[in-house]
Parts: sequence; structure tokens; C-alpha cells
Amino acid sequence: MQVIRQTNLQLPAFKRGFHLITPFIEAAIPEWPDRGLLHVFILHTSAGLTINENADPSVLHDYEHVFNRLVPENDPGYTHTDEGPDDMPAHIKATLVGSSVSCPIADRGLLLGTWQGIYLCEFRNRAAGRKLVLSVWS
Amino acid sequence: MQVIRQTNLQLPAFKRGFHLITPFIEAAIPEWPDRGLLHVFILHTSAGLTINENADPSVLHDYEHVFNRLVPENDPGYTHTDEGPDDMPAHIKATLVGSSVSCPIADRGLLLGTWQGIYLCEFRNRAAGRKLVLSVWS
Amino acid sequence: MQVIRQTNLQLPAFKRGFHLITPFIEAAIPEWPDRGLLHVFILHTSAGLTINENADPSVLHDYEHVFNRLVPENDPGYTHTDEGPDDMPAHIKATLVGSSVSCPIADRGLLLGTWQGIYLCEFRNRAAGRKLVLSVWS
Repeated sequence: MQVIRQTNLQLPAFKRGFHLITPFIEAAIPEWPDRGLLHVFILHTSAGLTINENADPSVLHDYEHVFNRLVPENDPGYTHTDEGPDDMPAHIKATLVGSSVSCPIADRGLLLGTWQGIYLCEFRNRAAGRKLVLSVWS
Repeated sequence: MQVIRQTNLQLPAFKRGFHLITPFIEAAIPEWPDRGLLHVFILHTSAGLTINENADPSVLHDYEHVFNRLVPENDPGYTHTDEGPDDMPAHIKATLVGSSVSCPIADRGLLLGTWQGIYLCEFRNRAAGRKLVLSVWS
Repeated sequence: MQVIRQTNLQLPAFKRGFHLITPFIEAAIPEWPDRGLLHVFILHTSAGLTINENADPSVLHDYEHVFNRLVPENDPGYTHTDEGPDDMPAHIKATLVGSSVSCPIADRGLLLGTWQGIYLCEFRNRAAGRKLVLSVWS
């Protein structure tokens, strides 16, 4: 018999940039099934989620560099500027990375590659802690 | 007992740009479960789906501006040019946003953040109405 | 009664670029349900997955062109450079396309649009065959 378990996860506030949050997610799941799928969803439009390298902090630094180059602040073409120069770029960046990640579960844990971790991508300068919804399918 | 319900959704034709389609999706689901997950899939390669800001139309305008800057038409490096200058950029843009979105269901409705809505990202100049497949897991 | 089936898929090595892998995935699923969802996950951080045009090889060529322009090698802002000039761009590109794709299943097969196929996006110059995890929900 399959079950769906939905868990809310309130993250602490993170500064602008890319941050590994795999341990927060692992700690929030009350019980891992033997096999299944994890779906992680962020309830915000100026931050996102992605899965990438979990070992070297320089990768996280370079993500911030590249995303700022791809979607710079103060583009004279922006019309949505009332919430500050970091706001409109944050929306676009959130779409580029996406608002959810999903990955398999096996042996009562995340089935990730050796170097994979889940990132919170915080695109605002000063954001409160972000809210996630974790769904576990088994 | 879990069930999967699959529903086809034929959207009307939208002009090139970003469009909120949450109401179309909500109206197409015949019965919401108490808890679950919605998966929305687009059956096309030159349009995509994303989740972002649902309140201010200027955000949708600026999305179009930024995606046109990131993947411009008439790049001399393109070799796939037979279907018009908007075609190859449309494929790339569709990959950047993605061909599906998924979000949790709770209390017999979408569990979205306050400012979140589902966008159709129409990247062709003149496209017929797009076809979606909605899968509800409960 | 719903079931989840998880299958490992070891791809052969592909050269840098975009490659259609739908046939590998279809061959790896031992039994298709009548209706459901397929989730494809890549266990790597320098390659990704996307769904796009399955007919004209010029599209695959132009993907490589555009992604190299969006995330060029040898950006002086990179600090993660120990693994070669193709490594850091590969991580960013993998995030832009994503580490998973999912699509509906109907009539005992993938429910894709006429022109849709699943791409392996290989961003390293010399990578071994990539490992995927296929999850079928029915």
C-alpha cells in the first residue's frame, strides 16, 4: 500500500547566494520509506532549488557570479522595479533554476550521486527564512 | 488507496509571452484529493511552463524582455533556421524554463505560495493553443 | 493498487553535446503500466536532462552553441578551476537544464508530444557513461 507524506520545512534565513540544504531536508523527513521519490517545493518566487556539487564551496561562489552575469540588476529594460534592484532578477533566476527538485529514494534515504546535494538558491539581498513542502512517495 | 488521475487540457491560443494559466488548470481538474501532488506537462517543444509571480503584469513583461536577451533571434551561429527566426530560440527557451511543473496539493487545492502562479511560456510568434497533460497523485 | 518500480540505467559514454536517449529509456523499462508517470534522474552534477525536439539534428547542434555562449569557459570570475575549463560551466549548465525530467505514461508507453524526445545533455569534454535512475509510478 502506497502512502504520501507531506512535511513543511521552515528554513532559517540565508544570505543571498547558493547554499547546501540537504541536511535540513534529511532531518525533516520523519520516516524514510524503503523506496520512493522525494519532491521538494519552495513556496516563493524569488528563490529556487537545484541539485549540484556538494563538496567544494567555490562552486557555490561561482554560481552566484554566473547568475548575476546572466540576469544583471538595473537592466534599463525592466519595468518591475518597485521592490528594489534585486527583485526582478530574482524572479527570472528562480525560473532558470526552478521551484522544485525531485529525486529517488532507496534504502531508506536519498538516492543521490556521490557529489550531489540540494541547493537553496537565495536571490534576494535580505529574505526571511524560506518555506519548503516535502512530499515523500512510497 | 492511492489513485492517479490524468486529464488533458487544451489551452486557447496565447500570443508570444508569459501568461498565467492557474485558473485553466484549476478548472480542468474534476476532483481534488485531500492531499497529493499535481504534475503539469506540456506536449510541445517551443513553449514551456514555470511557476512565478501571480500579481503584477510587469513581471510577465520583463520575463519576455530577459528571455529575448538571453536567447536572441538571428544568431549567426544557428543552423536550424527553416521554421523562422523565432523557432530555434523557442526550443532553447523551452529547455531553460522546462516542460513540466509540479506542486503539492493540500486541502483539496493547489498548495502554492501566496504569490505563486503557473505560467504558460509561449515562445512562438503564432502558435495554436497548447496541449497539457495534468496528472493528479493522491 | 499502485506500485513504484525503480530501474537503473547505465548509458554508454557520449561526447560533449546534446543526445537523444529516448530509446535507451524505453528499452530499460521492463514493463509499462497502462497509466502513470515516468521520472528520470541523473546521478551527476556536470550533465543534465531535458525534453525537446526529436527530429532534426541541427537543433541538437544549436543547443551546444547557445549553452556555450551562455556559460563560456575561462570566465576570469570562476574560482572553481581545478578540474579543467569545461568543469565549472558544466555545473551551471546542468542546473539550467535540470537533473530530472518527468512525463506522463499512457497506453503502456511514454505520453510525449509528436516532436518530443528526452535529451542527455553532456557538458564535459570526456565523461564516462552516465548513470540514470528511472522511476515508474502507476
